[in-house]
Amino acid sequence: MSRHRAAVEYEQKANGQRPVENAKAISILESYSGRSLGVIELQFEKSADGLVPAVAQDYKTGEVLMLAYISRDSWAATLESGYATYWSRSRQELWRKGDTSGNLQRVKDIFVDCDLDAVVFKVEQVGGKACHTGKRSCFFRKVAGDTLTAVD
Amino acid sequence: MSRHRAAVEYEQKANGQRPVENAKAISILESYSGRSLGVIELQFEKSADGLVPAVAQDYKTGEVLMLAYISRDSWAATLESGYATYWSRSRQELWRKGDTSGNLQRVKDIFVDCDLDAVVFKVEQVGGKACHTGKRSCFFRKVAGDTLTAVD
Repeated sequence: MSRHRAAVEYEQKANGQRPVENAKAISILESYSGRSLGVIELQFEKSADGLVPAVAQDYKTGEVLMLAYISRDSWAATLESGYATYWSRSRQELWRKGDTSGNLQRVKDIFVDCDLDAVVFKVEQVGGKACHTGKRSCFFRKVAGDTLTAVD
Repeated sequence: MSRHRAAVEYEQKANGQRPVENAKAISILESYSGRSLGVIELQFEKSADGLVPAVAQDYKTGEVLMLAYISRDSWAATLESGYATYWSRSRQELWRKGDTSGNLQRVKDIFVDCDLDAVVFKVEQVGGKACHTGKRSCFFRKVAGDTLTAVD
């Protein structure tokens, strides 16, 4: 398949012109880099903004580190690079986690849910800190009665 | 505070008429049931649909069981009832998980993220099955090369 043809098919998919079947939602595409890339189709179109939530979980401890969103492009970039790559809603751009802070997330495993509209990245958190506040996890506060209390 | 006054303030908040400060995003409201209810304000308005993602995680094993969404009302209902209560995007209604299947989720702890726009429910999964497919977790498929493989 030519790169042009692959790009056209990718566009068609992005525009929802080929419906995705839940059970066989797999397609093989060439990546824009030219090498073979398998893209497992997720249900991006289910949300108004075309994004799917991704939960980053420490691959050893099981701690939930953060929740962010992926676009179709960040999903492809994550699969291709092996590093968690999200879509920044505030900056409206592809965001490889850690590109600025150095706290990259090496993806060890990816789990996809029954509806193909949420994923879990099992990651090795480089630098040990997922949160921009310097905490290990973004979920460092716990509901305690009517208030929140920091637990870490 | 009268129930009427509480209802008015709740409405005002729901309409975003009182900006929420990140650091002190706590308010005490009376619930519609009349008893005192503390509602910790989340950033529902950050998404187009006014929903916040909630990750249900097994409180003992750390396994991520499912991801669903909460509205302002389902958040209040979860805090008040102690059972995970979501917003069904397909049915557009409050959805206490397990009301039909019996597989309720008893909430043991709730963690809130740094931006107040995602939560983790640590739950005891009644019946041991979170997924409508009968699986323990909705995340029962794993990316393996260009395909998905069931792991459970």
